Amino acid sequence: MVPLMSAEALRMRFEPKEPTFQNVRRPRRIRSGVQGFDQLIEGGLLENRVYTICGPPGSGKTTFCMQLLVQGAVERETGLYVAFHESPENIYLDMCNYSFGLPTLVSQGLVRFLDMSGSNPLAWMTEDDESPSPGNVLSIIQKLIREHNVKRLVIDSLKAIKFSYSKPQIARRDMTKFIHGLKDLGATTVIISELEDPDRYEIEQHLSHGLIFLHNFFQSRSMVRSVQIMKMRGTRHDCEMRKTVFGPKGIQVDAQKVDRLS
Amino acid sequence: MVPLMSAEALRMRFEPKEPTFQNVRRPRRIRSGVQGFDQLIEGGLLENRVYTICGPPGSGKTTFCMQLLVQGAVERETGLYVAFHESPENIYLDMCNYSFGLPTLVSQGLVRFLDMSGSNPLAWMTEDDESPSPGNVLSIIQKLIREHNVKRLVIDSLKAIKFSYSKPQIARRDMTKFIHGLKDLGATTVIISELEDPDRYEIEQHLSHGLIFLHNFFQSRSMVRSVQIMKMRGTRHDCEMRKTVFGPKGIQVDAQKVDRLS
Amino acid sequence: MVPLMSAEALRMRFEPKEPTFQNVRRPRRIRSGVQGFDQLIEGGLLENRVYTICGPPGSGKTTFCMQLLVQGAVERETGLYVAFHESPENIYLDMCNYSFGLPTLVSQGLVRFLDMSGSNPLAWMTEDDESPSPGNVLSIIQKLIREHNVKRLVIDSLKAIKFSYSKPQIARRDMTKFIHGLKDLGATTVIISELEDPDRYEIEQHLSHGLIFLHNFFQSRSMVRSVQIMKMRGTRHDCEMRKTVFGPKGIQVDAQKVDRLS
Amino acid sequence: MVPLMSAEALRMRFEPKEPTFQNVRRPRRIRSGVQGFDQLIEGGLLENRVYTICGPPGSGKTTFCMQLLVQGAVERETGLYVAFHESPENIYLDMCNYSFGLPTLVSQGLVRFLDMSGSNPLAWMTEDDESPSPGNVLSIIQKLIREHNVKRLVIDSLKAIKFSYSKPQIARRDMTKFIHGLKDLGATTVIISELEDPDRYEIEQHLSHGLIFLHNFFQSRSMVRSVQIMKMRGTRHDCEMRKTVFGPKGIQVDAQKVDRLS
Amino acid sequence: MVPLMSAEALRMRFEPKEPTFQNVRRPRRIRSGVQGFDQLIEGGLLENRVYTICGPPGSGKTTFCMQLLVQGAVERETGLYVAFHESPENIYLDMCNYSFGLPTLVSQGLVRFLDMSGSNPLAWMTEDDESPSPGNVLSIIQKLIREHNVKRLVIDSLKAIKFSYSKPQIARRDMTKFIHGLKDLGATTVIISELEDPDRYEIEQHLSHGLIFLHNFFQSRSMVRSVQIMKMRGTRHDCEMRKTVFGPKGIQVDAQKVDRLS
Amino acid sequence: MVPLMSAEALRMRFEPKEPTFQNVRRPRRIRSGVQGFDQLIEGGLLENRVYTICGPPGSGKTTFCMQLLVQGAVERETGLYVAFHESPENIYLDMCNYSFGLPTLVSQGLVRFLDMSGSNPLAWMTEDDESPSPGNVLSIIQKLIREHNVKRLVIDSLKAIKFSYSKPQIARRDMTKFIHGLKDLGATTVIISELEDPDRYEIEQHLSHGLIFLHNFFQSRSMVRSVQIMKMRGTRHDCEMRKTVFGPKGIQVDAQKVDRLS
Repeated sequence: MVPLMSAEALRMRFEPKEPTFQNVRRPRRIRSGVQGFDQLIEGGLLENRVYTICGPPGSGKTTFCMQLLVQGAVERETGLYVAFHESPENIYLDMCNYSFGLPTLVSQGLVRFLDMSGSNPLAWMTEDDESPSPGNVLSIIQKLIREHNVKRLVIDSLKAIKFSYSKPQIARRDMTKFIHGLKDLGATTVIISELEDPDRYEIEQHLSHGLIFLHNFFQSRSMVRSVQIMKMRGTRHDCEMRKTVFGPKGIQVDAQKVDRLS
Repeated sequence: MVPLMSAEALRMRFEPKEPTFQNVRRPRRIRSGVQGFDQLIEGGLLENRVYTICGPPGSGKTTFCMQLLVQGAVERETGLYVAFHESPENIYLDMCNYSFGLPTLVSQGLVRFLDMSGSNPLAWMTEDDESPSPGNVLSIIQKLIREHNVKRLVIDSLKAIKFSYSKPQIARRDMTKFIHGLKDLGATTVIISELEDPDRYEIEQHLSHGLIFLHNFFQSRSMVRSVQIMKMRGTRHDCEMRKTVFGPKGIQVDAQKVDRLS
Repeated sequence: MVPLMSAEALRMRFEPKEPTFQNVRRPRRIRSGVQGFDQLIEGGLLENRVYTICGPPGSGKTTFCMQLLVQGAVERETGLYVAFHESPENIYLDMCNYSFGLPTLVSQGLVRFLDMSGSNPLAWMTEDDESPSPGNVLSIIQKLIREHNVKRLVIDSLKAIKFSYSKPQIARRDMTKFIHGLKDLGATTVIISELEDPDRYEIEQHLSHGLIFLHNFFQSRSMVRSVQIMKMRGTRHDCEMRKTVFGPKGIQVDAQKVDRLS
Repeated sequence: MVPLMSAEALRMRFEPKEPTFQNVRRPRRIRSGVQGFDQLIEGGLLENRVYTICGPPGSGKTTFCMQLLVQGAVERETGLYVAFHESPENIYLDMCNYSFGLPTLVSQGLVRFLDMSGSNPLAWMTEDDESPSPGNVLSIIQKLIREHNVKRLVIDSLKAIKFSYSKPQIARRDMTKFIHGLKDLGATTVIISELEDPDRYEIEQHLSHGLIFLHNFFQSRSMVRSVQIMKMRGTRHDCEMRKTVFGPKGIQVDAQKVDRLS
Repeated sequence: MVPLMSAEALRMRFEPKEPTFQNVRRPRRIRSGVQGFDQLIEGGLLENRVYTICGPPGSGKTTFCMQLLVQGAVERETGLYVAFHESPENIYLDMCNYSFGLPTLVSQGLVRFLDMSGSNPLAWMTEDDESPSPGNVLSIIQKLIREHNVKRLVIDSLKAIKFSYSKPQIARRDMTKFIHGLKDLGATTVIISELEDPDRYEIEQHLSHGLIFLHNFFQSRSMVRSVQIMKMRGTRHDCEMRKTVFGPKGIQVDAQKVDRLS
Repeated sequence: MVPLMSAEALRMRFEPKEPTFQNVRRPRRIRSGVQGFDQLIEGGLLENRVYTICGPPGSGKTTFCMQLLVQGAVERETGLYVAFHESPENIYLDMCNYSFGLPTLVSQGLVRFLDMSGSNPLAWMTEDDESPSPGNVLSIIQKLIREHNVKRLVIDSLKAIKFSYSKPQIARRDMTKFIHGLKDLGATTVIISELEDPDRYEIEQHLSHGLIFLHNFFQSRSMVRSVQIMKMRGTRHDCEMRKTVFGPKGIQVDAQKVDRLS
């Protein structure tokens, strides 16, 4: 009754497809390396999924992610930390304060860093915006993942990529594609997202497979640090705010507070 | 007294028409598959209407919608889940954690998925915005609905479509047309809308036939999950926040709290 | 002392005029059809004025307006419901759930509908913005009002018209003209305005002759529905929030709460 | 030491001047006609100044201003009400509900109306923005003020003028000029400003000589109406919220609450 | 190692310079003329600095500033009040209500006014934006300061200048330059800044040497007026909110409340 | 499987690199000069890192930074204060009120100032935006750092640089580059960031190595000043709000309140 656009033409542009689920297999769970965290999420993160970790400045996002890479390395899985803002040298040095055994793991090539902070900082006057596009980032990462058989990936941070676009209305579409691209790389990924406006839900919070919040707020005269799992697809997860402490092994989730599972 | 534009010219552009209601017939109610929910809305959703389900990340929007499709499939009505962001494979796997019997229903073709997440994620550098327009989405869905006699439809999510437009002032008009187009398809539709700004009422909340909110908020030291029916045209509906629990069968509305019907 | 622009030139563009009030006559009050409402406003709405009804999704705006048309029809005055978003068929069916006797009144032509939801929903790809301008809307409505001697008019909703403009700074002026145009049509009009930002006063709330709010808020663990008359020119009106209930006859204002009149 | 722009050139553009105050004389106070109000402001408004009255929809701005004009008329001073939005006919009729004796005063030409609501409402499709500029408004008003020796002026409302400008950054300058122009007209002016965002101070609130707020808020289960004098230059004024009631004579400030003068 | 831009070229544009502090000398403190205020700031304002006074409409900014000029005049220092919005005639008359002895001081040329409210208010239709730029304002003021040996300067208000710019991103730079220019004029300056958004810190609040807030808020059923010194460089200052009263001598800071100095 | 962009081409533009950490060495901690502060951060700031200090007007940002430079000078390390807004002369004079011994340290060249407040303030009418770009600032600073072997650097303030850009979407990238450039200069840097919107986390708060907040808020009838370390990479730091007092030696952190270390 209604004239259709050529389905062929549409398919070429949008590639809608009906999946068959012939080859899907249950992903295994991997350990996060954050003490007390895995028991909130049925034992660990689902392999090969893309997670977002979100929080205010100083909430421990980097530390959490490094624990994830270290845990992988201990299990002989290579991890890659992609740094857009802070220099890998500083991150490395700061993380050496924890008793992760990071220098050994780095020297063994099991924890790797990629410095994406860009070109010569004194040379920018002749160039336009040179922020990496999601496509660039995917290509560069893909190469390293293949070379080194990377299994765990940290992207620090999403905002460095998102702001490369001049048209905000296509950011969502590109972010969807970027996350799909990450899924195809064969690694478990955690994206760091720097909290800007606490009163809104950001796009990436909706798009990623799981969403972990690190809180840092004032309560009865003290600052309280806590972790909260806002979303974890395919997982019966705790959704309370759980107090965290920073110890020699990094972030730990306070065990005795895990008294209410939804 | 006042010179009019040619009514003929106007009619061609806007097609104002006076309906006769000769052939309208009372829609039947269909069961949602969400335990405890149908009794809040006179027994079920009205067939062939378009509903919006809204909530923050991790509030259970996908689970709620899948229960709707599974309930249809159990009653031998084909359901279609149109996925723009998350991959159907991941949704399928995650939903297999519930005891819905989803693999059987999928293998029987009673629950179907459409992957609208788009083109090759590493190929975007040569293309402009390729987000599907509402017209594209309608055409693609229409074809599948006819082919498979689809009776229940889930669109995940509206934001993937809305953001395809460069002129925000026409989003409302296009969304109206999109919802009208969905109504003509002969299926009961639930549109997922990702909550962004909790302090505003969004356009789609006003435009859709029914509006279901999934809440996820902090109260007296715990996170509370609940469902609330904000709008349900043609239905004497409960409008309280009703506590929900996630069990092996998905979301359940807490029965004993249903003590106040407006 | 100061050189003036030619008053003649100005008058042609702006038509300032000093009215004489020779022919003004006191408008009569018409009954709203909403039980308990008219006694809050000296017995009824003033005839031929333009009112705005405002509220969040699901607050009962459509039901309130339909009661107004039904009351007119019972008094043998023709009413017209102009639908921009929801289809008249759905509104008709939903309203048949109330014991208004709507089918009879519709079949007698006393309650009429105009479908302004526009062109073929699958055909939009070839057209630009086709939202009706206020001028279009007035012309189309004027013709029907003359043809059928319409006395009561509902416009659902203002936002469908307001958003047709690309320059926001002239929206106020055009809305003023639109409301003036409605006043000249010889019918009592209620404009539905969908609440978007509850923390601001919108232009239309200032411009219309009367402003009725339908509230739907959370109070002491329950949702409370209420009506509030924010503005009603020429009328000593109640300005409290009055509880409402939805019964077989539609919205009713709770009689026993009407204990404080300003 | 520093090279100056030619002072002559600057003076021509900006006309900075040092006043001598030779001819300034103390303005007299005029009675507002609002019972209980004048005693809050040393007996009345200062003649020939420009005041702003601000409030949400339905707060009584029009009534307050009409009382001012009526009081003047009773004292044989002509008043002019410039209506941009509501039609003078409707304002006239609505105000006849009060026992102001308005019809007599209007027939004597002591209370006059100017209809600035503009051109034929059905003819707008061929025209651009035709909102009156502040210069137009001043010219038109000036002519009437001279013709009829107008002493009290009401402008309803400022927003109708402010929104005529496409460049917001010059609105402040133009508003300053507009208010200066009003001051030169030899009448006491009250500008109605429709409250839009209650959390901000608007430009006109800063620019006008006096600022009167009409409040309409919810307190302990009831709506409370009140008046507050935010600013009144040259006057030792009360700055509390004073309860108001609407009676047959219009707005009255509640006498027994006037117990605290700053 | 890194190629530098020619330092010569840079120096010409930005004039970075290393000061020697050879000729700097301790500024003396001048009395504000506001009773109870100087004891909050080590005895007075630092001479030749630029201060900002900020507050909502009607908070007493003009009165505070006039007291400063009057105090100077009593000490035989000439003061200049630069008026952009309100006419000097009105300010003069309003301030004559206080027992400042203003007429005598004005006639002696010790308190002077500059009318910057601009060109003929009825002539604007042929001109573009004619707001004075910061450079214009400085030039005009500089000339008067030299002519009359002005020692105290009031600029009413900053917003009149700030809004002359079409590119907001350079407002900060220009404001910095404007404040530097004021410092070079050899007078102590107070800039009036009209509060618009109470939830943000404005640029000028950061840029000026001292920041004085006049509050006017509702507390336990009454409006409370107070002064607060937010910033006062080079001064051990009180930072509490101090209650103020308006008396025949203008604003007075309530002495008995000055019980806590930080 | 997926065609890659030439890795060579990408590398040239983005210079992704895998660091080896061969030459990294543990930075030493330097004393801040703020009494009671160093014990909150394991004894001092990490050398050669970039810190941000943030606070409302008058919170003591300049004083805190000057204490840092003075402490360095006492230890015979040269410090440089780069002033964009306030004149070095005023800062110098204001800081001489503290018993820092600043005049001696300045005369010895151990505390140096750079005046970046720009060109002749009366000459701006012929120039466009002349704000220094981050590249300019780095070049100018680099030269001075080499000439004088500067070890501690204060930039007052970041906003003067950030607002030089017309495209906000590249501000983050440029700020990243600027902070990287500062790191390469071989000095410990503190950037002053003027708080504008207290409800958002600003980009620089996320990008810098450490984030120190100076609070100034109303609590139980008094203003309370405090310091809070929001972020300090590589450091087990206190994260409470610690009360501060201003004494002859500048800001001191109240010792007895340091009773809770996270």
